[in-house]
Amino acid sequence: MPKTEPRTLPGFMELLPNEQILFEQMKQKIEKVYQRFGFLPMDTPIIELSEVLLAKAGGETEKQIYRFEKGERDLSLRFDLTVPLAKYVAKNHGNLSFPYRRYQIGKVYRGERTQKGRFREFYQCDIDIIGDEELSILNDAELPSIIYQIFKELGFDDFTIRMNNRKLLNGLFEEIGQKQNSVEILRIIDKIEKIGKESVIKELEEINIKKENIDKILEFIEINGTNQEKLEKLEKLNIENEQFKKGLEEIREVLNYVKIFGVPEENYNLDLTIARGLDYYTGTVYETFLNKYREIGSVCSGGRYENLAENYTNKKLPGVGISIGLTRLFYVLNELNLIKPEKKSISDVLVISMVENMKVPIEIATKLRQEGKNVEIYLNNKKLKAKFKYADKLKIPYVIVIGEEEIEKGTYKIRNMQTGEEKETFWDESKKHK
Amino acid sequence: MPKTEPRTLPGFMELLPNEQILFEQMKQKIEKVYQRFGFLPMDTPIIELSEVLLAKAGGETEKQIYRFEKGERDLSLRFDLTVPLAKYVAKNHGNLSFPYRRYQIGKVYRGERTQKGRFREFYQCDIDIIGDEELSILNDAELPSIIYQIFKELGFDDFTIRMNNRKLLNGLFEEIGQKQNSVEILRIIDKIEKIGKESVIKELEEINIKKENIDKILEFIEINGTNQEKLEKLEKLNIENEQFKKGLEEIREVLNYVKIFGVPEENYNLDLTIARGLDYYTGTVYETFLNKYREIGSVCSGGRYENLAENYTNKKLPGVGISIGLTRLFYVLNELNLIKPEKKSISDVLVISMVENMKVPIEIATKLRQEGKNVEIYLNNKKLKAKFKYADKLKIPYVIVIGEEEIEKGTYKIRNMQTGEEKETFWDESKKHK
Repeated sequence: MPKTEPRTLPGFMELLPNEQILFEQMKQKIEKVYQRFGFLPMDTPIIELSEVLLAKAGGETEKQIYRFEKGERDLSLRFDLTVPLAKYVAKNHGNLSFPYRRYQIGKVYRGERTQKGRFREFYQCDIDIIGDEELSILNDAELPSIIYQIFKELGFDDFTIRMNNRKLLNGLFEEIGQKQNSVEILRIIDKIEKIGKESVIKELEEINIKKENIDKILEFIEINGTNQEKLEKLEKLNIENEQFKKGLEEIREVLNYVKIFGVPEENYNLDLTIARGLDYYTGTVYETFLNKYREIGSVCSGGRYENLAENYTNKKLPGVGISIGLTRLFYVLNELNLIKPEKKSISDVLVISMVENMKVPIEIATKLRQEGKNVEIYLNNKKLKAKFKYADKLKIPYVIVIGEEEIEKGTYKIRNMQTGEEKETFWDESKKHK
Repeated sequence: MPKTEPRTLPGFMELLPNEQILFEQMKQKIEKVYQRFGFLPMDTPIIELSEVLLAKAGGETEKQIYRFEKGERDLSLRFDLTVPLAKYVAKNHGNLSFPYRRYQIGKVYRGERTQKGRFREFYQCDIDIIGDEELSILNDAELPSIIYQIFKELGFDDFTIRMNNRKLLNGLFEEIGQKQNSVEILRIIDKIEKIGKESVIKELEEINIKKENIDKILEFIEINGTNQEKLEKLEKLNIENEQFKKGLEEIREVLNYVKIFGVPEENYNLDLTIARGLDYYTGTVYETFLNKYREIGSVCSGGRYENLAENYTNKKLPGVGISIGLTRLFYVLNELNLIKPEKKSISDVLVISMVENMKVPIEIATKLRQEGKNVEIYLNNKKLKAKFKYADKLKIPYVIVIGEEEIEKGTYKIRNMQTGEEKETFWDESKKHK
């Protein structure tokens, strides 16, 4: 019979078991931290009506959508978890309690050009806090403590959560009469880390920003010092418009409370160069960098937005959220060998029998499972060496061997696969004192 | 601005938070049991090349596929987790250790006609054990103990795992010279529970089975008694072909070991009417029924197959597996109010502050989180009553209230939301003895 070549689409991650175990642990750690802070689970379909999913989208995103017809329906696969959240909150508004704190961990789809480390199917791990009409700025200060917990749990110490407030930037543009160019200017200064200061100046000149205004922009984004010093320097810019004053007030309160929420000072700072995208965010914005691996880019980003679901409802739903692109994060951390697993195997113990009657080995395994251990019994008929090799390849830390002698004595030997150390234990307590 | 109506496709489950919590708990319980028995996690793309995914499919399944083109590629959404497993094992054969035990919990897609309780997107929770060339029959006996553990964990006692062996059926058909009609006969007797004995006889007559052979078929499927008695009656049928003898030997060993694997006798039996589909299974087959809710149908099914991946490889890969259709199971159990959650909320505690400075409330929440509790702080500025209502709607079991007095005394009150009972605790140990 002719065979079909078993292959997986490019841009779709499919891991071998040992790596999948690491992936699942990362996913679970993130989920546990989200739950630790009281976020509620949410699960939405991967397929939505195109009309609903693309109510807002346009440009680059729309081109990447997996869109198709089934029956009479025009369908699309979700490309992020924010649009489904907006739909969900608008649809279920009367049945939700606000502030509505939800997490969602799920796959999203973007038909990007495939390249190393870029995926067309990838997990996003999102949290958002949605207010009904209003949402306290304290929520903006809580999120960095969640980011902090996650990266600590993932085994990192040297990382920085960089924060800014979009109102500061907008206030600055208003001050220099460049409100109409703000989207373009934000796009350019967002790249300063990548392209350098000179290129930023050049690009700003190209869109006809006057030299004195370029100077003001640079003066602003180059403000340095401690967070406290930066706040003081911002104050001294004497920018008097409402936007700027509100932004300064917000970021001051956020920075103050981030500390109270328990984030050590070395793990966060005010970074005035951060803008995060173009028109979605309206207040606090976040990016997170692993300091020794800056080239990875931000590993957790997000921010505050004015209105989540304006495409679906007249209700004003301000929110703040963050997102982790787990598939890419896993990919780069795994490439750099930076994943620190708690367990490298699912099973804690492999039970190997050297006798044909499996009664005693099964009963020992059952007992260990009742004690909460993950236990596999090697059930196939193979040589002892092959069975040990199996445990080794699966990185199972302990092996129990049961032979005639052990059954007679009511014991088993448990072997530490790392050290080779063996310990004898009674499975049949009644034989202990004979 | 005109609004798009926020709606979800029919046949796609989207739950409110309180129900989603129950769903996640069921999913997690199933996953934990799978891991308890040493199954490895696996995650495959939802999108595959149609050529790969549909290498075997045909008929009813093919019509239901979500299939579309993107770029130059003909793509399909997976409709089960077995075909992706076959692809994966064929593709990664050299990198896997056998027997390969994997679990996969994920969404699959079938464009069925929508009706109550039928879903187009639904979770399957599968385990399979795949052997390289051979696989011990003991694996067939282990699976019922996993089914047993799962339904116990889900809070059920009164359920029956029904088992049969396809070789017994095939041997019977050989005996009565109806091998060529076996698919058709199986299809008919598979319905006996639904349509009754008389209709089965009628349908068998319609495909020209002779009366004496219909009698033999009925004699076979009506064999009753204890498992031991059934085995004896099967023996006495004096069917001498190899198929039948092999089937009898297998089911005898499986039933013997199921008991050793710890499944109580009231939770499993030999049921000779079970066939499970048409040509996929070749040995042991399973169905699981909640005895008080037989109308739900089987809640966990599966069986032994000769060769997993014959469309992709010449390697012989026998396997045995089971599957739980979680979305439908959740739906019917929820409708029947049969879900017994461990926790009805994500948060264990809601911290409510009556003072403006949130320092102390935040520190108390941080401390409780460090102790492993899930804690939410109510951060919006609302009346006390609204905050309690929030805890109530989210079914959070404990609320901590912190006011001026508590801050001064270094205490907080923790309130049991069910009983109304309040307990005072010191958060500031230094104030304890003043």
